[in-house]
Amino acid sequence: MSILLQGIIAYPVTPFSADGGVDLNALDALIERLIADGVHAIAPLGSTGESAYLSDDEWEAVATASIRAVRRRVPTVVGISDLTTAGAVRRARFAEQAGADAVMVLPVSYWKLGNDEIVAHYRAIGDAIGIPVMLYNNPATSGVDMSPDLIATIFRTVDNVTMVKESTGDIGRMHRLAQLSDGTIPFYNGSNPMALAALAAGAAGWCTAAPNLNAALPLALVDAMRAGDLVRARAVFHAQLPLLQFIVNGGLPVTVKAGLRLRGFDAGEPRKPLLPLGDARTRELERLLAALPDRVTA
Amino acid sequence: MSILLQGIIAYPVTPFSADGGVDLNALDALIERLIADGVHAIAPLGSTGESAYLSDDEWEAVATASIRAVRRRVPTVVGISDLTTAGAVRRARFAEQAGADAVMVLPVSYWKLGNDEIVAHYRAIGDAIGIPVMLYNNPATSGVDMSPDLIATIFRTVDNVTMVKESTGDIGRMHRLAQLSDGTIPFYNGSNPMALAALAAGAAGWCTAAPNLNAALPLALVDAMRAGDLVRARAVFHAQLPLLQFIVNGGLPVTVKAGLRLRGFDAGEPRKPLLPLGDARTRELERLLAALPDRVTA
Amino acid sequence: MSILLQGIIAYPVTPFSADGGVDLNALDALIERLIADGVHAIAPLGSTGESAYLSDDEWEAVATASIRAVRRRVPTVVGISDLTTAGAVRRARFAEQAGADAVMVLPVSYWKLGNDEIVAHYRAIGDAIGIPVMLYNNPATSGVDMSPDLIATIFRTVDNVTMVKESTGDIGRMHRLAQLSDGTIPFYNGSNPMALAALAAGAAGWCTAAPNLNAALPLALVDAMRAGDLVRARAVFHAQLPLLQFIVNGGLPVTVKAGLRLRGFDAGEPRKPLLPLGDARTRELERLLAALPDRVTA
Amino acid sequence: MSILLQGIIAYPVTPFSADGGVDLNALDALIERLIADGVHAIAPLGSTGESAYLSDDEWEAVATASIRAVRRRVPTVVGISDLTTAGAVRRARFAEQAGADAVMVLPVSYWKLGNDEIVAHYRAIGDAIGIPVMLYNNPATSGVDMSPDLIATIFRTVDNVTMVKESTGDIGRMHRLAQLSDGTIPFYNGSNPMALAALAAGAAGWCTAAPNLNAALPLALVDAMRAGDLVRARAVFHAQLPLLQFIVNGGLPVTVKAGLRLRGFDAGEPRKPLLPLGDARTRELERLLAALPDRVTA
Repeated sequence: MSILLQGIIAYPVTPFSADGGVDLNALDALIERLIADGVHAIAPLGSTGESAYLSDDEWEAVATASIRAVRRRVPTVVGISDLTTAGAVRRARFAEQAGADAVMVLPVSYWKLGNDEIVAHYRAIGDAIGIPVMLYNNPATSGVDMSPDLIATIFRTVDNVTMVKESTGDIGRMHRLAQLSDGTIPFYNGSNPMALAALAAGAAGWCTAAPNLNAALPLALVDAMRAGDLVRARAVFHAQLPLLQFIVNGGLPVTVKAGLRLRGFDAGEPRKPLLPLGDARTRELERLLAALPDRVTA
Repeated sequence: MSILLQGIIAYPVTPFSADGGVDLNALDALIERLIADGVHAIAPLGSTGESAYLSDDEWEAVATASIRAVRRRVPTVVGISDLTTAGAVRRARFAEQAGADAVMVLPVSYWKLGNDEIVAHYRAIGDAIGIPVMLYNNPATSGVDMSPDLIATIFRTVDNVTMVKESTGDIGRMHRLAQLSDGTIPFYNGSNPMALAALAAGAAGWCTAAPNLNAALPLALVDAMRAGDLVRARAVFHAQLPLLQFIVNGGLPVTVKAGLRLRGFDAGEPRKPLLPLGDARTRELERLLAALPDRVTA
Repeated sequence: MSILLQGIIAYPVTPFSADGGVDLNALDALIERLIADGVHAIAPLGSTGESAYLSDDEWEAVATASIRAVRRRVPTVVGISDLTTAGAVRRARFAEQAGADAVMVLPVSYWKLGNDEIVAHYRAIGDAIGIPVMLYNNPATSGVDMSPDLIATIFRTVDNVTMVKESTGDIGRMHRLAQLSDGTIPFYNGSNPMALAALAAGAAGWCTAAPNLNAALPLALVDAMRAGDLVRARAVFHAQLPLLQFIVNGGLPVTVKAGLRLRGFDAGEPRKPLLPLGDARTRELERLLAALPDRVTA
Repeated sequence: MSILLQGIIAYPVTPFSADGGVDLNALDALIERLIADGVHAIAPLGSTGESAYLSDDEWEAVATASIRAVRRRVPTVVGISDLTTAGAVRRARFAEQAGADAVMVLPVSYWKLGNDEIVAHYRAIGDAIGIPVMLYNNPATSGVDMSPDLIATIFRTVDNVTMVKESTGDIGRMHRLAQLSDGTIPFYNGSNPMALAALAAGAAGWCTAAPNLNAALPLALVDAMRAGDLVRARAVFHAQLPLLQFIVNGGLPVTVKAGLRLRGFDAGEPRKPLLPLGDARTRELERLLAALPDRVTA
């Protein structure tokens, strides 16, 4: 069975210009660079893309610009999460018409959702579009935790929910998803510090913002795991682990934008209430980036 | 010292009409009824008011209509929370100009906020308006937990943050707030099932959606506590506790709207992804409402 | 209905002599002082009494000596918790024969217990003795959390389980116990920093190690609450709250033994792995003790 | 560098006879079978061995009998955890003199321990013996959580703490241990459902009670991981995962003793407060055991 998404699915930040608006030129350049670096898919408007802080107009502009920038060289997965079901459906349709290959949906909601509300939310989105949906579980940001059993139920009952991104950091969930679906649910790692474990557990890919700062090491990890070379995989993974821990602990938009500036790429500041990374931590990040190896050998 | 808010601060739901839009006539009638029932303040656009699911236009319409409906008979506290600082500031200014007596702010944010980000968020809002701010801590819905120490810091450093609504359900937090401020922070209970304990601990008031369905019992609890009649207070509290537990466990907009319908008041359905209370639970709610005493005597 | 235990149930530490053995003379003196100070019951061999770290011989010696020291001037409640059911039954019988008025049982267990295992444990103990059992819920130390529903079940089905000590710090649990039993379960506060709230909620008493260092303030809180004088109760409570927070945060045996030494009473050191309170924290405790008021007036 | 323990470290249950005492003949037979099945080490008196529920005499009898039964064919690691430091030191010395190759220490304690208390506990044990200590972190049973940073500190400062068993179920902890020690801390997986991930992360071995019921599958997983054959490893792992989940969820002594009986081996009942596995769950276990493959091929 061929699978739409495999390997490194890269999450670009949404660059802002000095006046605070979306900087579509910088977005285009960033995506161009990611593809040149060899990532296997582009996922705009995720958590990293500060999707939650964009107006509807801004969201549409970023979706359109991202898909255009990718030019179908790799698949594009657009994050369409919204606080209301109506808003998510509207965004899903927009993404499909703009040429997205798939959409990603986190059930964000102010009020905690019951299982029936979550299923209805996915069903409404699935019914509204013809492209695949990647279900995204990340209780730390969404406040809604979907158990492996619930995810398997949605996978079985909503036709175009065909992929699962798991970000709880609990490797047992991935084994459980495989178990519940007899290995038929393609799952993706969304928790950077457990990438090696997730790939060992059979993850089809790794959804990550790290390639904004360094794509070679995530790609090398995927290669080593495919080759069954666990010694090399551990070496490659440990070489990038301090960076992964740093960007996760500091919040992805904040740390990745600071790192891009250190790399000479101006993606602007994160949007308030997020504040830019302070000086001390920026220097720490600078040291981490400088310490990354050019090549990793076991 | 006179205090702006005391006693029962009532949170009206936001009624929707059959076409899904905001029903301002029903909102007006609901507020009229709450004031007639004797509540001490009206707080539109809180969690109960499904503020998170309204468009900006809808939010403004509800703010304006609520303040107009109250006609300054009691204070109006408008919830102005928004995912971005810029959005919260815009709403705070709007509320002030529309005649709100105070605004309530929960630091909702997709990304977890650091303490400096939370302080900056409150400062930006406080600096933008001349009316008091009620700081609202509710990690279960906002994903951001403000410790008593952080709250006391904000209270000291942002001039117009003058009230705190605590909804963690941890009575120790309220004692700690009193301790850290030498009793100068007016704090309010936001966790319905601990209203008695909070008032015993010295809460200035109780922020609650319960008056949508029954205002007499919350008012009676406040009266008994003011009189130091703990035996009566416990009787009054236990008489309403099953209802409080039910509306909290089932989610306030969902259960209160179902209860209003049972009371003969049509406030429409909650907005999706929220689903209406199902039949079985509606019958359970009906029994709870029927079991409420007309008067409570110890 | 008369009730066995009311008011302040004091938990003496178990003094150790310089050679590390139990110091029964000091124990006798400590209990004498507690009774002279006016506490309403004595509860040896609780968490504070380092019961978990005593050999069976030491445990028996302390039980016997405590009951003898009390001389029936107030009730004695002996903690009989043990890791095995057989051990707990043996201790319960010993306590009864030695003259205890009641026993207190925390379901400590290395392995997490299921509800049926917890019920069987209480039943085995209850069946073995003729005196009342105080069920003690403290998941933070025991690793086993008993829900209000489970506690109510045990209360209904094991005849001599007639009292509940709740130490989760969740005031809602106490309301729920009252609700589930229609007010017939006498419950006791086991979480020092929520004593005021618990008494407001209807707790029959407060189980506390604080009287080792100061009995007047806990007694004054109980008095104020009985009188319905919430203003005085809050003043009295806030006067002792820093001490309560300190002894809870630092661990009761460690902090109380350090405080006793500061008070001129030598109860020795806690048993390893517990270490004595360090110098810096001891000075902090000294300041807290010095700051306690002689009398509290509202 | 040669390493004392690698591969499958098997945890025998402690068999009890009908009168409730320890059944040393059955223990001998069980260990004989485990060694015949090819496990790489034997670890008596762990959590599985109900060590917490044994008297000191019983504990000593099991330690002696286990070491004798092993006859140095593989290393023996004896669990010496005790609630007091003095008790743990006494057991460690006993184990060393009885011929143990290493001891395993979980810092069980009724009262939560501070970092200085934990370090002092390990130091006291380490100083008392000349054989290696395996530090064991399992907050779910011990109530004490040791962070990777604390573990690394103990590893550096207590000479004979040379191995770490991690049972939190958080794969990130293992990566962090490797990171903090530059790969020099041998760590072992103590969380059955994450065995594959732990071995991928570089665990030196897997500490498990599963071999009591089936040793072939755990051994096959270790083989597949050593060969870098992730496809086979996943197949082998998923074949045993339902059994691993069952024994973990039901508690190891309870489920493993039930399983042994189903296998025709009488190890008696677990000790109360633990209750035997009920009929319905025993039938479920029977089905799981029957479904295990004889051989696993990818």
